[in-house]
Amino acid sequence: MKAVFTDLHKGHDPKRFILRGKFARGEERPERAERLTAGLRAGNHELVPSEAFGQGPRLGVHSVDYLRFMEEAAAEWQTLADASDEVLGNVHPVRRGGTMPQSITGRAGWYMQDMACGIGPDTWLAASSATDVAVTAAELVIEGERAAYALCRPPGHHAYRDAAGGHCFLNNTAIAAQYLRSVHDRVAILDIDIHHGNGTQDIFYDRADVLTVSVHADPSRFYPFFWGYAHERGTGAGEGANLNLPIPVGSGDDAYVAAVEAAAKTIAAFTPGMLVIALGLDASADDPFGGAKVTAAGFRRAGEAIARMGLPTLFVQEGGYLSDQLGPNLTAVLGGFEAAA
Amino acid sequence: MKAVFTDLHKGHDPKRFILRGKFARGEERPERAERLTAGLRAGNHELVPSEAFGQGPRLGVHSVDYLRFMEEAAAEWQTLADASDEVLGNVHPVRRGGTMPQSITGRAGWYMQDMACGIGPDTWLAASSATDVAVTAAELVIEGERAAYALCRPPGHHAYRDAAGGHCFLNNTAIAAQYLRSVHDRVAILDIDIHHGNGTQDIFYDRADVLTVSVHADPSRFYPFFWGYAHERGTGAGEGANLNLPIPVGSGDDAYVAAVEAAAKTIAAFTPGMLVIALGLDASADDPFGGAKVTAAGFRRAGEAIARMGLPTLFVQEGGYLSDQLGPNLTAVLGGFEAAA
Repeated sequence: MKAVFTDLHKGHDPKRFILRGKFARGEERPERAERLTAGLRAGNHELVPSEAFGQGPRLGVHSVDYLRFMEEAAAEWQTLADASDEVLGNVHPVRRGGTMPQSITGRAGWYMQDMACGIGPDTWLAASSATDVAVTAAELVIEGERAAYALCRPPGHHAYRDAAGGHCFLNNTAIAAQYLRSVHDRVAILDIDIHHGNGTQDIFYDRADVLTVSVHADPSRFYPFFWGYAHERGTGAGEGANLNLPIPVGSGDDAYVAAVEAAAKTIAAFTPGMLVIALGLDASADDPFGGAKVTAAGFRRAGEAIARMGLPTLFVQEGGYLSDQLGPNLTAVLGGFEAAA
Repeated sequence: MKAVFTDLHKGHDPKRFILRGKFARGEERPERAERLTAGLRAGNHELVPSEAFGQGPRLGVHSVDYLRFMEEAAAEWQTLADASDEVLGNVHPVRRGGTMPQSITGRAGWYMQDMACGIGPDTWLAASSATDVAVTAAELVIEGERAAYALCRPPGHHAYRDAAGGHCFLNNTAIAAQYLRSVHDRVAILDIDIHHGNGTQDIFYDRADVLTVSVHADPSRFYPFFWGYAHERGTGAGEGANLNLPIPVGSGDDAYVAAVEAAAKTIAAFTPGMLVIALGLDASADDPFGGAKVTAAGFRRAGEAIARMGLPTLFVQEGGYLSDQLGPNLTAVLGGFEAAA
């Protein structure tokens, strides 16, 4: 299938995040894209460049004030004396109803939910380019491709309407899904990243027109901790249009694929016009975050299960971190899809 | 006046907090207590030891689950591989309605609003002993002293019912005020720390029986950033029972004392049975946080204004960080109070 790509992600190379109270080397590195393009080439997928769609699609999901913060934060942060290279929010509004301060320290805490989304000088360029990658690939499917793949970096599914978190800044998957709503009454999102897609869930939580389904490690002991539980089913008009399928941390192929197959039944009943796959590859047995033990064969079976839904399908890259299996696992899931499509 | 004190604070010596994206040396050090006791001795105040009141007074303000977290967090944190010495929460619930996870990383983020409240092995002992100091001093005033002083360390006014933050864990001021409610229908709190008393405000925000007034640097560019604005006036039964008097960052004696005098008018109209002063000394011109430029003469005038209210008064130590003026400023404010009492 066609795989959309840009080099503009490369300047975003976050150096540090807080893990167990210490700074750790960032895992969401530019090299991920090299591993993933190698996986695309191994699968004989056609790499095509992204096109620019401007701010419009982003505004379909994110607030104006958050987009402005994302664009301006890195430069304003450097006006602080002795500031770090990357913006990190260290104080957060723990109650609703607080007031947005002028201080960049305060605004960073307002818009950043954790210490794993440092904003560097080129983060906005990378993140905004990634939304173009997602929308370019969405256009390919609208124009008639059975499926397309968007190599988005940084990933997006932990980003809320107005908050960054978990290596994510702009929600590429949500932006693509909202964009697809212009041509389909109902769009389904299936998130198979090993972390719950909390940002995506929240963005569509009160809506009946976008079904959000997520397969992920039990959040009680895994990021994002506070969301991703089975009891979260949507609210208001969106009640019943959110499905969480947590699996135990350390699950293997069978539990993972079974959850994807269960998701497929709910998606079929929703009769969407299109399907967006939030394609994390961090369920891999070789992934440094260790959330599950899925093999290439398991990813291939997941791809087959997705194809059997028979829907025009957009794959949007989410997480999946550096290991020798990162590229082969992408080859496997897309290969499984094409074999069963 | 009598000044209540304990040595049990000493084991709490937080090494690090995050400032502008980097780890900085903790400012809330045991040496603060030595400077403050020197100031008490210089003022000829009588140092008396604290008594133990157990968990009861804490439960008047804090939730059972939060107290349990505070007591257990340091030990559980050390079960993580390669964990830091101090518990630091790095991921926070940015939306209401999330679920409490089992993970200590997730629970730390749930109960800690910022990166300036690291919990070490002796933090619980120190924080729980500080509430005993506050209640012991409250008892002295109940028993008929015109005023008493509680040397609480760590401080408390940024601590919410269920969240630590800003060097604070248990809200000594709120616990003392709630304790005083057993003998008075109405209690007033005046917080003159240069940081807004956001935890104290939140604890009593919907109540008419405890008036909370805070004089502090404009939070738009000063911690705690999201609260402390003049439009925050309480809610429900507590509407009108919260008054914020922000002054510009960098204000000197006149602006600070004028705000204390304005606070005194509101407190007089409330006709409380007792007054609790959340006594931060970080408005000092010599304080490392640089929020204001108040001199010893200004602190003395503030003490005089407090005394002129004519109320039984409990002083509870809040912030104020290491400088040669820390002790002398305590001498000044208590001396001003006694001269005008």
